[in-house]
Amino acid sequence: MYKELRQRVLEANLALPRLGLVKYTWGNVSARDPVTGHVLIKPSGLPYEDMRAEHMVVLDLDGQAVEGSLRPSSDAPTHLALYRAFPQIGGIVHTHSPEATAWAQAGLDIPLYGTTHADHFAGPIPCARALTLEEIQGEYELNTGLVMIETINTRGIDPLHIPAMLCTSHGAFAWGEDVEAAVMNAGVLEEVARMARWTRAIHPGVQPAADALRDKHFFRKHGENAYYGQDN
Amino acid sequence: MYKELRQRVLEANLALPRLGLVKYTWGNVSARDPVTGHVLIKPSGLPYEDMRAEHMVVLDLDGQAVEGSLRPSSDAPTHLALYRAFPQIGGIVHTHSPEATAWAQAGLDIPLYGTTHADHFAGPIPCARALTLEEIQGEYELNTGLVMIETINTRGIDPLHIPAMLCTSHGAFAWGEDVEAAVMNAGVLEEVARMARWTRAIHPGVQPAADALRDKHFFRKHGENAYYGQDN
Amino acid sequence: MYKELRQRVLEANLALPRLGLVKYTWGNVSARDPVTGHVLIKPSGLPYEDMRAEHMVVLDLDGQAVEGSLRPSSDAPTHLALYRAFPQIGGIVHTHSPEATAWAQAGLDIPLYGTTHADHFAGPIPCARALTLEEIQGEYELNTGLVMIETINTRGIDPLHIPAMLCTSHGAFAWGEDVEAAVMNAGVLEEVARMARWTRAIHPGVQPAADALRDKHFFRKHGENAYYGQDN
Amino acid sequence: MYKELRQRVLEANLALPRLGLVKYTWGNVSARDPVTGHVLIKPSGLPYEDMRAEHMVVLDLDGQAVEGSLRPSSDAPTHLALYRAFPQIGGIVHTHSPEATAWAQAGLDIPLYGTTHADHFAGPIPCARALTLEEIQGEYELNTGLVMIETINTRGIDPLHIPAMLCTSHGAFAWGEDVEAAVMNAGVLEEVARMARWTRAIHPGVQPAADALRDKHFFRKHGENAYYGQDN
Repeated sequence: MYKELRQRVLEANLALPRLGLVKYTWGNVSARDPVTGHVLIKPSGLPYEDMRAEHMVVLDLDGQAVEGSLRPSSDAPTHLALYRAFPQIGGIVHTHSPEATAWAQAGLDIPLYGTTHADHFAGPIPCARALTLEEIQGEYELNTGLVMIETINTRGIDPLHIPAMLCTSHGAFAWGEDVEAAVMNAGVLEEVARMARWTRAIHPGVQPAADALRDKHFFRKHGENAYYGQDN
Repeated sequence: MYKELRQRVLEANLALPRLGLVKYTWGNVSARDPVTGHVLIKPSGLPYEDMRAEHMVVLDLDGQAVEGSLRPSSDAPTHLALYRAFPQIGGIVHTHSPEATAWAQAGLDIPLYGTTHADHFAGPIPCARALTLEEIQGEYELNTGLVMIETINTRGIDPLHIPAMLCTSHGAFAWGEDVEAAVMNAGVLEEVARMARWTRAIHPGVQPAADALRDKHFFRKHGENAYYGQDN
Repeated sequence: MYKELRQRVLEANLALPRLGLVKYTWGNVSARDPVTGHVLIKPSGLPYEDMRAEHMVVLDLDGQAVEGSLRPSSDAPTHLALYRAFPQIGGIVHTHSPEATAWAQAGLDIPLYGTTHADHFAGPIPCARALTLEEIQGEYELNTGLVMIETINTRGIDPLHIPAMLCTSHGAFAWGEDVEAAVMNAGVLEEVARMARWTRAIHPGVQPAADALRDKHFFRKHGENAYYGQDN
Repeated sequence: MYKELRQRVLEANLALPRLGLVKYTWGNVSARDPVTGHVLIKPSGLPYEDMRAEHMVVLDLDGQAVEGSLRPSSDAPTHLALYRAFPQIGGIVHTHSPEATAWAQAGLDIPLYGTTHADHFAGPIPCARALTLEEIQGEYELNTGLVMIETINTRGIDPLHIPAMLCTSHGAFAWGEDVEAAVMNAGVLEEVARMARWTRAIHPGVQPAADALRDKHFFRKHGENAYYGQDN
């Protein structure tokens, strides 16, 4: 079962080190099957060079194993919380990619400083608040997901318009309609984070780009009035 | 038609990711045929790995399609505005190359801090002003070009002496007498932008290089008294 | 003798330039044989491209040559001091890897800013104090080791919980239960140092991550309650 | 004539882009024949990919062509001035390598912050003063060399103990007993410049390393009491 989706999740996992987003085993990717709702995710702590499609672990939305004998990524409860909360999400990527993680460690949103950002994200990349002592010492991975959901809901974000988030003192999550979009968004996030760091280094008091420029670029590429590419 | 120029525009487009100036589909190159005045430009949103010479779109200076069934780059109106204003320009490159874009996002000119800069650009790289709300919501891509032309004219710049510009909150344009020179100038711009960022990090109060040093280096390589290379 | 361990020490040495941790001959790796207690170490000043397993020098814990005709790394007395003080250490890596060295040159501990750090190190990476004039002009390499041991003991550090240290105005050491773990820790140290530099650049007043988060991540991967990977 | 030395100068020139020290044609290398005193230097503006050993230009110390029909590097008068002033120099490298150039553009010496620096350079890397208007508008390339010589003499530097210098608003020169040593010193200079920039970013008020540590490391590798490597 899930032969094609297993292969896509494998390839998405392997794309992370190739794109410079992951070193060692510091990352994981999952995808949701649109028919059954089951989630395929990377096994925990397996080196990328040994990973094969049949290693991907299949879980139901409550985290019960459906297929596979390996232990799933320890971050699986975070992924599942996001899938449960947002049915429009079909793929999730977690990384400690260094530029995004530097902003997460700083505990700051990545401001929308320009059109590279606005072409892919309709606003600042939010940094979810730090977990409380109880949240850390309780179901930590689940609570990591719940705090991200709280952030999306409190700020009134459409998760497909801003398909990424930072977790304070931790790392980054990105997602999308499918697993390939999630990988793309994780890669763009890293590039946007780098440019934002450099922008502030050059001009510490820089202001975000104008709202009109943000909307122009985002909706030039997304939604019914898009006119970028060959398909719109 | 345009068999040789199509190939050159293709190769110039492919040079951008290889030189580290472009990720994903974030860039475009065009060239003007010196005889007919027609402009060849990259199609919109096509991945670099799928691009072939026959995909290049041929437009007249008013943007009417002459050859090709693909939609041209959405930035085509910016390129055409520059070609109409400056007959001496034969090739244009647009990128979001990260070092130049960081300066654009900061909204600052790149000061002329040294001879690497002066060897290729006879003064600071200008950062064109932000577009107004009306300019963004109107013919955005055309207005992007018009604001660059305004900057060149207001500052009294010879566009072949300073063949690059930043657009506030956006990215960079570079140009030249032909498409190969435009690519070269886009590459040098990125390197000069990096060195300028590092220079300011080391010494925030640094002053630009002396005017005499700027002129010495620029005219050592350009114009009738040049003595660099084998051809002068 | 030591055929297998010679090969492992060679491969660990060769991993350093491949991981971007060492340029030219700026680094060295050693391993302790768990049965005899002898230490195998890189010869001094030999280019990496010429190095073979038989070049590794075998020393006893007092630095007397057991096997090999080449001169050992000039840093051998530092390695031996650490092996004598801490029987649980099986491999040691010394590098001038640039990110870690920048912190060493700054004379500062690397604060624990996030979970990437906490996944591998249970606290800040200590920066050992500068050597005194007498320590420099006396048995310099031995004293370098003694000051690291002093730092570990004074601060009450478990050397396998924080398996790395900076030496003021000098470079970095990392270690582990075996030579492969030591190389891994040297690589993670460099990545953690880079992220910490960027974090402070973005937010100069940033505070370290919460102690509870540090403990959660460290003990998720280490010790009897670990639940990361397939083996716990 | 000079068949072997032509090949060595060619290989030294080709090493510069491979080591990341030079882009485009921004660099040049020369060597002095120890018997005749003639200097072999790269031709001006020739792309690295087209360069062959027979293209190297042979000059006497006064700059008169001895062999070769190509025009020598426009920086030849700078090289020749250094060879005339310091008979112990056998090879010279000029680059705009970005880290060293950032310090040159900042107009600052690179402080000796640690042992990586001290292993190769016995003190700070000096930044020669800016040229005067008369020096720029006169024999510019010759004067560039004369100001470096002035810096060495005024500061009482042994040019083989500190075999590199920055030129304000310009770039870097490195040299050595032969052309291979000059390339090595240019590479170490770039690495030292990078680490120094990062060190100051982490700790803006950092002080240089202790003089005793500087001397310990420099003389561990150089001079009659050296004990690093297999040959001392």
